[in-house]
Amino acid sequence: MTRTVTVQMEPQAAPIDIDRTAVIIIDMQRDFLQPGGFGESLGNDVSKLQRAVEPCQKVLAVARELGMLVIHTREGHLPDLTDLHPFKLQRPGSSHAGLIGTEGPMGRIMVRGEVGHDIVPELYPKPGEPVIDKPGKGSFSSTALECILRAKDISTLLVCGVTTEICVNSTIREANDRGFFCICIGDCCASYFDEFHEMTLKMMKAQGGILAYVTDSKSICDSLKSLSS
Amino acid sequence: MTRTVTVQMEPQAAPIDIDRTAVIIIDMQRDFLQPGGFGESLGNDVSKLQRAVEPCQKVLAVARELGMLVIHTREGHLPDLTDLHPFKLQRPGSSHAGLIGTEGPMGRIMVRGEVGHDIVPELYPKPGEPVIDKPGKGSFSSTALECILRAKDISTLLVCGVTTEICVNSTIREANDRGFFCICIGDCCASYFDEFHEMTLKMMKAQGGILAYVTDSKSICDSLKSLSS
Repeated sequence: MTRTVTVQMEPQAAPIDIDRTAVIIIDMQRDFLQPGGFGESLGNDVSKLQRAVEPCQKVLAVARELGMLVIHTREGHLPDLTDLHPFKLQRPGSSHAGLIGTEGPMGRIMVRGEVGHDIVPELYPKPGEPVIDKPGKGSFSSTALECILRAKDISTLLVCGVTTEICVNSTIREANDRGFFCICIGDCCASYFDEFHEMTLKMMKAQGGILAYVTDSKSICDSLKSLSS
Repeated sequence: MTRTVTVQMEPQAAPIDIDRTAVIIIDMQRDFLQPGGFGESLGNDVSKLQRAVEPCQKVLAVARELGMLVIHTREGHLPDLTDLHPFKLQRPGSSHAGLIGTEGPMGRIMVRGEVGHDIVPELYPKPGEPVIDKPGKGSFSSTALECILRAKDISTLLVCGVTTEICVNSTIREANDRGFFCICIGDCCASYFDEFHEMTLKMMKAQGGILAYVTDSKSICDSLKSLSS
């Protein structure tokens, strides 16, 4: 039996098949959300990302209850930094030495296995939920994400995480070009820059939803809960 | 002998090696720039993209004089539409039939081989310049672009074209994740939406140039011309 619900979204409501829909939570790592990590070291106010945590918890709870596929991603590099491109470590013309791989209060910055690299406790993956470690901004580049989604016959992605304009945006673009229907849950995403967050959502849903549809955690949870009742 | 020039950019000036730098001109097609094509059929004012043509001509002229690699891209589909994802043809929940592949005044919309699909005469590729036909927004997805860039030992991309927030932005994200240093030439890009153009450039160069550096055609041409004199 198909489990299909209609979700209120912009630019328009549309049906989604729950059994072909995955929730993907992008980069909700200490390195971006907590003081002392990569985000703060770039000069950002990391407290601005906290607002996405509670909406993500709500969506995760409903998705898990319905047995939906939940995938998490983490941006970071191998301890020997062999997967770190030179232009990412040190931006051209910059007099600053590269930060990635250096010691910080949560371990080596943006390095896999370190405390700062891991996902915040409030959104920690459950056993069996795939965790995608990625060296770039997009979640498809140099990862097995597409393989997992095809293996599970997924057609639709509910996208959450940080930051809206960088890793969420890149992942949605990669997914859209691969034929996935992307739904960005706006309040489950956050940015260090309010105007970037707002404008990214506006760009995604422009021209008839050229990159993605946009909704909020309440609309998604209301629609999903109608199935479990 | 290495041919290196310093280019004035934001967030900072940086050197580029001309022999490892390619110019990439994204989707300067009739379908997006001229009346009767795909862009106008989505309700956009296509005259807004004209502003990028003359700056692109200037950059192309200098790049060709220096013997730099110049690459063009075109978004479009095979005549049988086998490379068109269902969600791209018809957006979910939409009551409108899909436009791609239907007959328009410049031939079938967004179909390879049709008049509307080709590049505008002012920026037409010279013999020997690779033309990348792509089914998506990003120029790396489902194309040989990365293969060509690696074969030519390219490290740096000067990115021009339309639209700033969609295909230029997606291509820069794909390139950045693959380790290329991306320089977006702002006035060589254009959008149907002024605020999307401006905000996209601002997002790219934020946080130390997290996705790309941004410059203009005069700065690039001045730097490049210093080599030929």
